[in-house]
Amino acid sequence: MKPEIKSALMGVTTATLTTVLLKKGVRFCYVNGARPIVPGNFTRIVGPAFTLRFTPTREDLATVDSWSSPRSTRAAIEDMPEGCVAIADAMGLTTAGIFGDILCARMRVKGVAGLVTDGMVRDGQGVIGTGLPVFCQGYVAPASVAALNFVGWQETIGCGGVTVVPGDIVVADGDGAVVIPQAMLEAVTEAAVEQERLEGWIMKEVNKGLALPGLYPANAEHKARYEADKAAGRA
Amino acid sequence: MKPEIKSALMGVTTATLTTVLLKKGVRFCYVNGARPIVPGNFTRIVGPAFTLRFTPTREDLATVDSWSSPRSTRAAIEDMPEGCVAIADAMGLTTAGIFGDILCARMRVKGVAGLVTDGMVRDGQGVIGTGLPVFCQGYVAPASVAALNFVGWQETIGCGGVTVVPGDIVVADGDGAVVIPQAMLEAVTEAAVEQERLEGWIMKEVNKGLALPGLYPANAEHKARYEADKAAGRA
Amino acid sequence: MKPEIKSALMGVTTATLTTVLLKKGVRFCYVNGARPIVPGNFTRIVGPAFTLRFTPTREDLATVDSWSSPRSTRAAIEDMPEGCVAIADAMGLTTAGIFGDILCARMRVKGVAGLVTDGMVRDGQGVIGTGLPVFCQGYVAPASVAALNFVGWQETIGCGGVTVVPGDIVVADGDGAVVIPQAMLEAVTEAAVEQERLEGWIMKEVNKGLALPGLYPANAEHKARYEADKAAGRA
Amino acid sequence: MKPEIKSALMGVTTATLTTVLLKKGVRFCYVNGARPIVPGNFTRIVGPAFTLRFTPTREDLATVDSWSSPRSTRAAIEDMPEGCVAIADAMGLTTAGIFGDILCARMRVKGVAGLVTDGMVRDGQGVIGTGLPVFCQGYVAPASVAALNFVGWQETIGCGGVTVVPGDIVVADGDGAVVIPQAMLEAVTEAAVEQERLEGWIMKEVNKGLALPGLYPANAEHKARYEADKAAGRA
Amino acid sequence: MKPEIKSALMGVTTATLTTVLLKKGVRFCYVNGARPIVPGNFTRIVGPAFTLRFTPTREDLATVDSWSSPRSTRAAIEDMPEGCVAIADAMGLTTAGIFGDILCARMRVKGVAGLVTDGMVRDGQGVIGTGLPVFCQGYVAPASVAALNFVGWQETIGCGGVTVVPGDIVVADGDGAVVIPQAMLEAVTEAAVEQERLEGWIMKEVNKGLALPGLYPANAEHKARYEADKAAGRA
Amino acid sequence: MKPEIKSALMGVTTATLTTVLLKKGVRFCYVNGARPIVPGNFTRIVGPAFTLRFTPTREDLATVDSWSSPRSTRAAIEDMPEGCVAIADAMGLTTAGIFGDILCARMRVKGVAGLVTDGMVRDGQGVIGTGLPVFCQGYVAPASVAALNFVGWQETIGCGGVTVVPGDIVVADGDGAVVIPQAMLEAVTEAAVEQERLEGWIMKEVNKGLALPGLYPANAEHKARYEADKAAGRA
Repeated sequence: MKPEIKSALMGVTTATLTTVLLKKGVRFCYVNGARPIVPGNFTRIVGPAFTLRFTPTREDLATVDSWSSPRSTRAAIEDMPEGCVAIADAMGLTTAGIFGDILCARMRVKGVAGLVTDGMVRDGQGVIGTGLPVFCQGYVAPASVAALNFVGWQETIGCGGVTVVPGDIVVADGDGAVVIPQAMLEAVTEAAVEQERLEGWIMKEVNKGLALPGLYPANAEHKARYEADKAAGRA
Repeated sequence: MKPEIKSALMGVTTATLTTVLLKKGVRFCYVNGARPIVPGNFTRIVGPAFTLRFTPTREDLATVDSWSSPRSTRAAIEDMPEGCVAIADAMGLTTAGIFGDILCARMRVKGVAGLVTDGMVRDGQGVIGTGLPVFCQGYVAPASVAALNFVGWQETIGCGGVTVVPGDIVVADGDGAVVIPQAMLEAVTEAAVEQERLEGWIMKEVNKGLALPGLYPANAEHKARYEADKAAGRA
Repeated sequence: MKPEIKSALMGVTTATLTTVLLKKGVRFCYVNGARPIVPGNFTRIVGPAFTLRFTPTREDLATVDSWSSPRSTRAAIEDMPEGCVAIADAMGLTTAGIFGDILCARMRVKGVAGLVTDGMVRDGQGVIGTGLPVFCQGYVAPASVAALNFVGWQETIGCGGVTVVPGDIVVADGDGAVVIPQAMLEAVTEAAVEQERLEGWIMKEVNKGLALPGLYPANAEHKARYEADKAAGRA
Repeated sequence: MKPEIKSALMGVTTATLTTVLLKKGVRFCYVNGARPIVPGNFTRIVGPAFTLRFTPTREDLATVDSWSSPRSTRAAIEDMPEGCVAIADAMGLTTAGIFGDILCARMRVKGVAGLVTDGMVRDGQGVIGTGLPVFCQGYVAPASVAALNFVGWQETIGCGGVTVVPGDIVVADGDGAVVIPQAMLEAVTEAAVEQERLEGWIMKEVNKGLALPGLYPANAEHKARYEADKAAGRA
Repeated sequence: MKPEIKSALMGVTTATLTTVLLKKGVRFCYVNGARPIVPGNFTRIVGPAFTLRFTPTREDLATVDSWSSPRSTRAAIEDMPEGCVAIADAMGLTTAGIFGDILCARMRVKGVAGLVTDGMVRDGQGVIGTGLPVFCQGYVAPASVAALNFVGWQETIGCGGVTVVPGDIVVADGDGAVVIPQAMLEAVTEAAVEQERLEGWIMKEVNKGLALPGLYPANAEHKARYEADKAAGRA
Repeated sequence: MKPEIKSALMGVTTATLTTVLLKKGVRFCYVNGARPIVPGNFTRIVGPAFTLRFTPTREDLATVDSWSSPRSTRAAIEDMPEGCVAIADAMGLTTAGIFGDILCARMRVKGVAGLVTDGMVRDGQGVIGTGLPVFCQGYVAPASVAALNFVGWQETIGCGGVTVVPGDIVVADGDGAVVIPQAMLEAVTEAAVEQERLEGWIMKEVNKGLALPGLYPANAEHKARYEADKAAGRA
């Protein structure tokens, strides 16, 4: 993705992105259940989606030996480009962790921007220790094969109620993760940057004591004041 | 699949199959939520799995126009061979039906053995009217695109907690649907047929008034009696 | 509501209505959990919504004495006009029944078209015996006050994931219940009647053996054939 | 239990029992999830509770061999007295059936009044075929050991949100199952019989066209009319 | 509310309040799901309930334009008196936030004591930054209109399984939020203050090494000791 | 338990234990829902299980008076040996806390190693203040009797999807709690210690920049290197 787009999105909250996407007709863009692994961490990540797909475990398929097969999570990780956001469909399961500290450490070494899943990771302390930004439902002890079977990567997936196509843009912060369809990236970014600026100005007005009706959303009078402030470099 | 295997499995309950699979090390073989569309219908279907995969709806992808695309449920249905069991990963969603009466009518015309899903169908009366055996969570009014996005067919899927690989064997009856890994088909069928025979004999003994301990599971004495009855054509 | 609208809607499935509403921009119109009290009953009801609202039980409010108060379910029922569809927000609770046989019998006597709820009724045999069409999650033994507190009637409510404003139109059949916003009634009815006619024609084509691509949705060629058949009174 | 109590309770709905128990201070008496195995069957059973307890499966405990142990479901069944209602804590799990057709057939032969569980049974067709009244969440294929470990019998259990002490009275019908604490049995039965009588009289009044306020609950005037009718043998 | 009542309740845990309310016959007083927005924050708030009600989103009602209507969340906030606790029925939905940082900032400016909801807020970092005490299920990115439709304020609502009447008293702390029916306020406060004092004394005894039986609950001997200590100013 | 086993397990993560148990055939060993009461606390506890069992509340059984009975949680606590891990089956309920600060303080005084439950505790601030390590779903205000009835102790229980037999070994840390069947204790401990050592070595290799395939799981070449490093005291 273009550096200026990435840089612009680093300054936009996922809350703003969902509002902009809703106005542009996309309601299903928010990944339910993907929370920062350290609660209250508001760091943001931005990057193109690298998808991973799991199905339920099956004793003849999801064996410990499968970890050595060419179609394994290990092989998928080696295929991840620098700067991507790995996003994994774990069917929302909370009974096993998709990755532990070793896999996350390797992703960190490779420069992966972060990991997003509607499921869990495992070995929470170790994963946090790698410094890889992870957005998930939490961490549990059981290994992936206890509940999950790895199928493949870079396929269209569902994750937390959102369809993700490889190459869509993922933005995640303290409020969770949002998927921007690739074709809408520039329009969404532009509108979001402006929305952030406007809301920052409104917030200041509220803190001055202004009442909400007419201000948020802004009516003609307040909009004019905002435009004036913007022109004068005050918003 | 071989006709004699199919014919043997038509005489075996899914209850027996899960027990046989568990003894052979496969616990994750039962499709949660797939019930006969007419409650209390105990008709059985058997056939190789033809898989379908859905992800969550997304306004730019799951459009009414997408129904005309080459990668549509319509195209998938035209690709189904006679005798297969269509099995669809609908992520267990109950808020939209994957297929309605027209699609089911086409499947019926093409000789599809049945439809299994962890989700819903729609236009229940119409679907039942086609005569296609359907195993699902029920029927609702909303169309698939209200909640689902069709991705493709003949991929490995998860359905109701089971991983299904195209070509696995699906057996469904009043107790639900079971997936037999292709490589285990003959061994499972043989063991299941014998298990049914033994349980039929035990049931007669119970109805004669015998107590359960020692009989079910059968101890050496009862096993000998069963073998004798079997040899004599009485079991 | 106009008799010709009601009569037209009596011939349209809820499945068709959800498709028409989705095309007109309303996705949230289907009442999750409201099923015919007798499974497999496909009788349809149509009528303006008469809303009822419950909150959770509270020992000082939801007393047996509250049944005699002026703000009781009893008073609400006496206020129901003939032909309305009573629709009750029970917060989807399955642990108590909102109404039993006596209240349903009174509704039946008053000519209420039916009862729709996202919760339960109680005394299933008695309620079925009254002949009142009821759409609910099922029936349980406990009385409303065991889990619910009645608040009032003819307010805006949520029911099974849909907002219902008094005077919206409710249509319910074997596939569940759909809410049509009052302002869209005529446009939705007109489009739905045409959609039913077209789908009836397509179903006949499928039963003749036609493949789905191009037929459903119909391409220009098939559309022309349909229009010709319609003009000739054959669709 | 005394035959006259049993006979009286055979004429009382579980709906009435929950109302009577609530008035006497017991709100937690209804077994969530226990439905007649054949939907719409309104046959009633009454009997003292014979409890069974399951915990989650564990591979070293819930083996197929465990079915032959002295602490098995088989041994428990042999211990059941005629006329009891077997009630099993299956933790509400829907992924395995606690009993199949052979165990239910043995219970039927022994004169057990019925089986109540917050979980599932298996081999639905076979279980229905035994004629044993069963109240459960439904039937699935997997055997108990796939998800459950049998612990013992005649202990205090929880079942569907109700604590059941061996010897409590279980009444089950189309609306589900209710547990009457043993010490309250006579008082509850007496009040319930009277309540049924009164509600039968009110139902007739409603069918004559009377309005609900004042009638249900009955005010002084209506109560006097009821008492007069009762004295005259008309209620 | 009287300042001395408020001040007394500021010294009482919600845990103690639920016990006192249970003893006085009110079991349904605890708001499920309302947690401090910063986990582990044990700050307490007390104030009269100012209620807000949401229903599910509907595209023709819950528009971005609706934010400017006279019946909007903005108008409701302007109507909130200083010291009230805003409590919002969001139907327990976790897919959209009812309020973001701007609305919470305005509430803070107006002197609202806090916000309680069974749902979510959005823009977690911004909301926490306002300093308004918030009790909710967490924070997500999507705006209210993605899932919710605002109906009105100062109506009776259900929130997290509790019915709240405007004017009831809400107390919230690290253990969640409790609703005290207005009529019971003084009696509950008095009993709760005494209960806290007694439990503080018991805690000291436990830390001295005393065993629990006889001490908690206190038998006659321990009660006498407590009364003596209280009289002597040691409890 | 032997001090050297306890000491060895204090150095092993629950993540490693679940992998070792899975390889030895035990999949059902992880307690769903038991999390450190202070999120992000990674302290570990190890000890033999002392079990507690709850069923749903019932007004005639779960009274405040029951707290003084010989079969009370108080009596159970007095029976707990030093070093045990109390593990309570609360049926996963989140609507009441099993223990508050006073009971936890007593457990702390008695030297109990920690408390594990699939439910909740209450008075979170007070419980945390006692210093007792607690693993639970969280803390809420309501007392146990609001939702739970205490049955007894040192029985076989289910907790968070695991069967626990008194004397099994419980290990809990930031990833949750694992139950080791008593008979497998030594074999599991030995394998786990070796697994931790190997994974520590692999982690270092990953941090040096090695790719995952062949390394994790280790192929023959890497295994030889590990063994050499181990022999040389470098792993």
